[in-house]
Amino acid sequence: MRLRFLGKSAVEEGESDPIRDLSTLSHFLTRRRFLEMGTTLGVLVLPQGDRDVSRDLGMPRRGYGDPSPFEKVSRYFKQGEYPASGGSATPLQDLYGIITPSALHFVYMRAGVPIIDPARHQLLIHGLVDKPLVLTMNELKRLPSVSRVHFIECAGNSGAEHIGQPRDNPTRSHGLVSCTEWTGVLLSTLLTEVGLKLEARWVLAEGADACRMGRSLPIEKAMDDVIVAYGQNGEALRPEQGYPLRLVVPGWEGNTNVKWLHRLHVLDQPAMTREEAASYTDLLPDGTARRFSFVMEAKSVITRPAGGQRLSGSGFYEITGLAWSGRGRVVQVEVSTDGGNSWQKAEMQEPIHTKAFVRFRMPWTWDGSETTIASRCQDETGYWQPMREEIITARGMQATDHYNGIKWWRIHTNGELTHA
Amino acid sequence: MRLRFLGKSAVEEGESDPIRDLSTLSHFLTRRRFLEMGTTLGVLVLPQGDRDVSRDLGMPRRGYGDPSPFEKVSRYFKQGEYPASGGSATPLQDLYGIITPSALHFVYMRAGVPIIDPARHQLLIHGLVDKPLVLTMNELKRLPSVSRVHFIECAGNSGAEHIGQPRDNPTRSHGLVSCTEWTGVLLSTLLTEVGLKLEARWVLAEGADACRMGRSLPIEKAMDDVIVAYGQNGEALRPEQGYPLRLVVPGWEGNTNVKWLHRLHVLDQPAMTREEAASYTDLLPDGTARRFSFVMEAKSVITRPAGGQRLSGSGFYEITGLAWSGRGRVVQVEVSTDGGNSWQKAEMQEPIHTKAFVRFRMPWTWDGSETTIASRCQDETGYWQPMREEIITARGMQATDHYNGIKWWRIHTNGELTHA
Repeated sequence: MRLRFLGKSAVEEGESDPIRDLSTLSHFLTRRRFLEMGTTLGVLVLPQGDRDVSRDLGMPRRGYGDPSPFEKVSRYFKQGEYPASGGSATPLQDLYGIITPSALHFVYMRAGVPIIDPARHQLLIHGLVDKPLVLTMNELKRLPSVSRVHFIECAGNSGAEHIGQPRDNPTRSHGLVSCTEWTGVLLSTLLTEVGLKLEARWVLAEGADACRMGRSLPIEKAMDDVIVAYGQNGEALRPEQGYPLRLVVPGWEGNTNVKWLHRLHVLDQPAMTREEAASYTDLLPDGTARRFSFVMEAKSVITRPAGGQRLSGSGFYEITGLAWSGRGRVVQVEVSTDGGNSWQKAEMQEPIHTKAFVRFRMPWTWDGSETTIASRCQDETGYWQPMREEIITARGMQATDHYNGIKWWRIHTNGELTHA
Repeated sequence: MRLRFLGKSAVEEGESDPIRDLSTLSHFLTRRRFLEMGTTLGVLVLPQGDRDVSRDLGMPRRGYGDPSPFEKVSRYFKQGEYPASGGSATPLQDLYGIITPSALHFVYMRAGVPIIDPARHQLLIHGLVDKPLVLTMNELKRLPSVSRVHFIECAGNSGAEHIGQPRDNPTRSHGLVSCTEWTGVLLSTLLTEVGLKLEARWVLAEGADACRMGRSLPIEKAMDDVIVAYGQNGEALRPEQGYPLRLVVPGWEGNTNVKWLHRLHVLDQPAMTREEAASYTDLLPDGTARRFSFVMEAKSVITRPAGGQRLSGSGFYEITGLAWSGRGRVVQVEVSTDGGNSWQKAEMQEPIHTKAFVRFRMPWTWDGSETTIASRCQDETGYWQPMREEIITARGMQATDHYNGIKWWRIHTNGELTHA
């Protein structure tokens, strides 16, 4: 049989035809032309064939590919206090789906990027263990492995929002978070092999960068879902991401995901390194500090349309963005397009990974008037992403790490978007 | 309380301690040191701190990252009959997880890689439609989008196995298949908008490469899961992958996934282009040909250890590889390490996407004797990947496209692996 599409319905006509299978076609029947392209989008044309398209032979093959020269990637850099320190952000507004290209994963470094020969790199595991070990990269790659999609977020990501200095585009406001597929050996596999002594309570992970950046992890997390990773998005780690070996500590502040990993020291207490004593504590209004506040809580941001972009006029747009939670899976995302008066459920891209980006999308028709838009998400613990005011009430204005407030973008009548 | 790890069990000792949570630790109790590292892997050491590790400041920041200079990517190139034609394969043995880096996605091209300005690129949709349209890239990006992980496989992938000229490593034998996250607009969304006339039965998709490579798709597939894609692995398509726009036809032979897409022509019959008349038909023993045999059926290959690699001695290894099916999800993978006398279930990496790579893994201890290893997979239709002999019986020796036989690797006593 044949199906005729007339606006919102299809009419069956003609004789039966084995090439058509009604079961696969049944969903056509409920489809609607909600975009009305040709009236609001696109140009109606008379049928024609070839147009202004080159007939020249193209570029020859390359060994390892690069983006098109027409793709201008703009990354936000921030110079740190010391030479070869600082960070570069992920251009969230340019991302599609949930995978961040390895080349665009955010970076924060304290002593530059060491260029390490994997044939000489070794991982030492020592301290409160039965059998201290040194493993080569080849030995690590023989062990049972896992590949999992996880986000990594800098504790300071979007901290400027907290202190009332909001940034005007997603890269600058939220760009210290990325999400890739990591491959490696579970840390629990290694610790089980070396055998933890009864006093073992913490594991110091130390990098082979010049400053030997190190962080201590409680043994419970170390034995849970931490990955000693050598692969990222299908290939070896990039140098900026810890080549040839890094820790991936799912859901915990980026600084604990120690790069260029060369030493695991099993201890009975935290090592109190510079990064967990002088930094990465949250000073509270009563003068005490939250220490070892590792988890990055539920957070989301609209990336298109967003600050720094411009709508070309009223009409249909897809609102899209990213949500994530360090406590597990995101279970719902809501979007407001009217300054918070109402919230609508956004569609979430399947499958939903734990402690990973969730891409959300919502169809929307802009009527051309000024408004503000935002997203908020809930994770599997029931926790909702809070408003900025709630965070300030709870933690005051000193502690800018771990900020996860709802982010508003303002759409002006000329289509421009800015921070709200 | 404290837990002491003594071989296969843990002993509780001492006083209760709030930092420990037995519920998260309970899985420790069943853990075993199956690797016995220190006796078969790694070097036992006395505890020590810093070793032969540089204290020099590292490389400064970069805008767009590259792999480490120590990662030598070797891709297999095959020159085609004509200038700027031919293909490059994905180094499957170097991949981790299920994502192929965009830079290493396999390529097959007939007239080189056109470098297209996205600001000038347009998609024409015409033929048996109510409202022919031309859409710009910016207009396409305003429409409702999807991101999905799918493999693309060349119809000729592993065809040399069919004709008895097996290749000696995974790149050369199976490297014309890759898997990435694609983002774009469903073709069904576009066809619904332009309105199909009742005679509409096929859609010709044509590329903007110099040869205007084109293929016809039945309308049922076009209205099912085909994506008009502009994104790959989070960023814009790479030039070799069709920048700025391509078709992704999940599960169907690579050639139908038309790159540099600039025209969709809705027809009442297939266009019978060169690629579906002179090529991509399977000549059968009785002299007839299978035409429009689009689907790439269930297939798998062990990628480590595999041909071209060498085991460093007897002991523990993880066997790993990739499985995929153009008919839906892979539901199980089995591995034989004894020439097919017995098969064991391999673990499959979660989540399992439809029409996408599945990474499988199986722990294995090599006793040092000569053997052959292989994998086989079953998809959700119940279909099992066949033996080469079954394919030859069914289709003879002329039709080398769509070969999906079980692939054997031989392990020699010196640890070297070759085709079996």
